Amino acid sequence: MSATVKNLGEQGLLKIFRQYCSEVVGDDAANMGETLPDHQMVVTTDMLIDGVHFSDRTTSPEDVGWRAAAVNLSDLAAMGAKPWSLVMAVGLPADTAIAWIEGVYRGFSECLRTYGTELVGGDTVRSPIRTLSVTAFGQVHKNQIIQRHTARVGDAIVMTGLHGLSKAGLELLFNPELKEKLLSPLKIGERILAGGELVQAICRYHQRPVPRFDTIAVLHKILKHQNDFPISGMDSSDGLADAIAQICRSSQVGAKIFWRSLPIHRAVRTLAGDRALDWVLYGGEDFELVLCMPIELAKQFVNQLSSAVIIGEIIKGNQIDGLEMRSAFQHY
Amino acid sequence: MSATVKNLGEQGLLKIFRQYCSEVVGDDAANMGETLPDHQMVVTTDMLIDGVHFSDRTTSPEDVGWRAAAVNLSDLAAMGAKPWSLVMAVGLPADTAIAWIEGVYRGFSECLRTYGTELVGGDTVRSPIRTLSVTAFGQVHKNQIIQRHTARVGDAIVMTGLHGLSKAGLELLFNPELKEKLLSPLKIGERILAGGELVQAICRYHQRPVPRFDTIAVLHKILKHQNDFPISGMDSSDGLADAIAQICRSSQVGAKIFWRSLPIHRAVRTLAGDRALDWVLYGGEDFELVLCMPIELAKQFVNQLSSAVIIGEIIKGNQIDGLEMRSAFQHY
Repeated sequence: MSATVKNLGEQGLLKIFRQYCSEVVGDDAANMGETLPDHQMVVTTDMLIDGVHFSDRTTSPEDVGWRAAAVNLSDLAAMGAKPWSLVMAVGLPADTAIAWIEGVYRGFSECLRTYGTELVGGDTVRSPIRTLSVTAFGQVHKNQIIQRHTARVGDAIVMTGLHGLSKAGLELLFNPELKEKLLSPLKIGERILAGGELVQAICRYHQRPVPRFDTIAVLHKILKHQNDFPISGMDSSDGLADAIAQICRSSQVGAKIFWRSLPIHRAVRTLAGDRALDWVLYGGEDFELVLCMPIELAKQFVNQLSSAVIIGEIIKGNQIDGLEMRSAFQHY
Repeated sequence: MSATVKNLGEQGLLKIFRQYCSEVVGDDAANMGETLPDHQMVVTTDMLIDGVHFSDRTTSPEDVGWRAAAVNLSDLAAMGAKPWSLVMAVGLPADTAIAWIEGVYRGFSECLRTYGTELVGGDTVRSPIRTLSVTAFGQVHKNQIIQRHTARVGDAIVMTGLHGLSKAGLELLFNPELKEKLLSPLKIGERILAGGELVQAICRYHQRPVPRFDTIAVLHKILKHQNDFPISGMDSSDGLADAIAQICRSSQVGAKIFWRSLPIHRAVRTLAGDRALDWVLYGGEDFELVLCMPIELAKQFVNQLSSAVIIGEIIKGNQIDGLEMRSAFQHY
């Protein structure tokens, strides 16, 4: 039988935690220093529960850790912020395998390293259910904050990458027999894949979401010599349709979607059949950014960022043409 | 039957949350502004689980909310920091009474208002067990941070208030028959109480811990014209003995305890009998501060703050005379 948290004791658990934590002093609170000049701090928090947000059936401990970091970092990217640091509180049953929690910390740290940030504090408590609660801090120049209530009539609506692939990955993980539908090789990112490699690549869209800090860097590059920062938006964690609807509601505008420009990946078409558009609009958890900006800027942006696509336009009113307003995630 | 979270739905739950949240824009992350000039940010996080850290048997929802805020704020006070703001993630079973979560938010907000801070963000998810995860941010002038590794030989050890009363309150809540031991009126704080009022006042030490920001204000007043800030310490959330031991271990020093100066409240003597000193040293959850500072300063400090007592001295070595090193909280 493998070693459990109960065997290890609280001090042992703390020792493992500290291997992944950059703060070693161990005071009551972690010291994070000052904000950068002219920058503001933004903060976001997400709780992940075993059986609700992850499951041993679909997610390795490393992937649970990666996801716990990535969903929070995506919220920072959506505000146009650079990551500053994170804290993670963990609730664990006494019979949790040590290997599981080590895997979680490993995946979490891998994500943090990838995006140049670090874990500075946490808490470890006993709980009947495995629970992770992550809070992430970012910094953003006070003139470069991206919010959802500032979209303007005439703005182009841009999405930073494909939608529906996270849902496709989740479906493959729950229903492995679906892989028999993937008969021919498909292009995923820059590569053409088939068979097990193709299945794995699609599953990774669900298991390893990517916070789109790269798109923020592109925006800053384009806008370098401009005083104005005419960008609004949010991430698409609750679905592409939800993101468009939230931006429109907050900004008191409507939207026209360019349905013919909306890309649907062949893997989504193959797996979802006639529900393909549903997966794209309502599948959720793609963690792309949905950004609104003047059309000239949008053209430069999609030119510089090959994954980005102009999918619509902000219009007067409060309607989003052809979009059925149902939410991807109704948690209760 | 009372209304539950399931009846309310996620949007309804969010609406309740927003009544208590100062950020109304609803972006992916909350915008907290810049740190004050020459200040650093400190952060702390605590997770509270139903049946582990609170229970309907001993704690009203309002008290659960207050405690969730106070335990985090105490960590900020222990660093010498002013509270800046907090976020709270909540995991709830679908059959949770709406009245319960409203009570939690109410108690949480009451504590935040009392100490001049606010809730800026959060998350609400489904969970099989009621779970609160709070992260608190504070700001502290870069020359006035209190840490536990800087105690110096010769420093006086000061505690800011009584210990053992939180344990006394918890015992009374679990064993109501104990109240029959409280036959005579006792002085609690500034008042002399008896009967039900006395029991209630003792229970409040457990239910409504007080983060000691007032003691930090006194320190700053005394040290106003000094460049040096020779204070080390931490809070006594895990027990008085644990705090002294942690400070000594971090600072690589020993301690001499003035056993005759260590106050034991009459309520603790009455309820604990010959285990009274145990409750004082290992009872835990009193959320006082244990501070080390030069003796002259300590004298001024206890002069200004009537609840504070000098209880020992930092000495060379790594021994704490007469203190049995066992932990109040071994969670696994």
